[in-house]
Amino acid sequence: MDFTLSEGQYNLVYNSFSFVIASMGAALVFFLLMRSRVAPRHRMALTLSTLVVGIALYHYVRIFGSWSDAFSFTDGRYVQDGEPFNEGYRYVDWLLTVPLLLAELVVVLKLSKNTTRSMLIRLSIAAVAMIALGWPGEVSDPDSTARTLWAVASTIPFIYILYVLFVELGRSLGRQSPSVRKTLDGMRYILLATWGVYPLAYMAPSVIDDAAAAEVARQVGYSIADVLAKPLFGLLVLAIALSKSRDEGYVEAGDDAGADSRVAVPDDAGDLVEA
Amino acid sequence: MDFTLSEGQYNLVYNSFSFVIASMGAALVFFLLMRSRVAPRHRMALTLSTLVVGIALYHYVRIFGSWSDAFSFTDGRYVQDGEPFNEGYRYVDWLLTVPLLLAELVVVLKLSKNTTRSMLIRLSIAAVAMIALGWPGEVSDPDSTARTLWAVASTIPFIYILYVLFVELGRSLGRQSPSVRKTLDGMRYILLATWGVYPLAYMAPSVIDDAAAAEVARQVGYSIADVLAKPLFGLLVLAIALSKSRDEGYVEAGDDAGADSRVAVPDDAGDLVEA
Repeated sequence: MDFTLSEGQYNLVYNSFSFVIASMGAALVFFLLMRSRVAPRHRMALTLSTLVVGIALYHYVRIFGSWSDAFSFTDGRYVQDGEPFNEGYRYVDWLLTVPLLLAELVVVLKLSKNTTRSMLIRLSIAAVAMIALGWPGEVSDPDSTARTLWAVASTIPFIYILYVLFVELGRSLGRQSPSVRKTLDGMRYILLATWGVYPLAYMAPSVIDDAAAAEVARQVGYSIADVLAKPLFGLLVLAIALSKSRDEGYVEAGDDAGADSRVAVPDDAGDLVEA
Repeated sequence: MDFTLSEGQYNLVYNSFSFVIASMGAALVFFLLMRSRVAPRHRMALTLSTLVVGIALYHYVRIFGSWSDAFSFTDGRYVQDGEPFNEGYRYVDWLLTVPLLLAELVVVLKLSKNTTRSMLIRLSIAAVAMIALGWPGEVSDPDSTARTLWAVASTIPFIYILYVLFVELGRSLGRQSPSVRKTLDGMRYILLATWGVYPLAYMAPSVIDDAAAAEVARQVGYSIADVLAKPLFGLLVLAIALSKSRDEGYVEAGDDAGADSRVAVPDDAGDLVEA
């Protein structure tokens, strides 16, 4: 893969990576600070979200460094002359974070112990298979049949994951409260939509003829997909955990005084003030 | 943009960046330490301030590094001979922090759920539009019509934001307690004044003929604006959250003992002892 990048192309990828670092870091701090707002029994889902963005933060710092080391600015263009950019960080990241992401969704639902365990095991195996089968294709020649074959192989566990999330998990939706059900239903589609960005980024080298443009599209695509699938998805899991905590009457220590004073707000305070 | 900087010019920018790093870091620690003084129900605003200064801290560390890498000291002057200075960090920073800054102000007011959600969505869209429209102008030629046109386009969502803050938010002021009202009223003007520094810095390259002086004015201007709009603004949000917590009778866990011991101090202990 030999190509040079214009200043704009290089910077687009560079700034996308930096944007992901800032997003993962902010999400990490946010999830840690929001912890006390969630009832202890719903904190496991938040813990998993926290791990996911923490692991991704680490990997994007490495990816960012690998990208800057791989190119140098010569005669107004960025030329590959250092160590090659290490694509492996992404796959190690996904190997760890994808099972955790799926676990977030399962754990926040509070299904029966047996169902939870069985789903977690099957989803984790499928996630690892999906990523492991994608890797040989990712590093093979853009126009090779091998790339396509591995992509197809990787799609089989992907479809199994979708089956579990939509059909099996769908059955449990009826037992959730209406507000939780609405968020959950939306979440599955967001998961589908954001996970759809990964195969698009994966296919970029096969679809785009210009090697430089294909590389930029792939890196920016993966960056966008990771921000949607990790911090954004974690926010939705947090929303469910908060909603369940509230429904169950959980009040953060020290917040009862505030709760009392809220009752004391007269009705005629108007609709702008939370009564 | 080829120019050289005198030692004084280079250092003025360099030290401004370092000043911003120290300010953001100090604000980050301060907001984390002040957290327990604020009632849990008012902590979300403080959380957002914490994220804002954290994200800005990260970006200023990168900006600082990019600035030092872009120049080298040759024959008593700073010459651009490394990778070009990356202006992109600022825009990525603003893309994340400006919606969060606006959210701080809205969230600390505790308006009704619907009003809050509607305002947050509209302010976020306007903020993203303002920044996205400013970017093409920022990277275009200093004297080009393009720069002016993008600046004008970016001003339209800016004016919309001011409309929401002054007219829409103004309606809710009457329902806040007198002390909160005073701080809030001041805050909107501080927001206006500090945000006014950004366009001035933006216009520097079009107004100042000397390229080096224009670059220094722009970087120092943005640095000042960021310190006013992030740590200082966060302090005012904290003041409101503290004031509301006190009004509602919130006492930090473990602080009731302190209240009791104060009562136990005999009257004749003298006026130096807090009675």
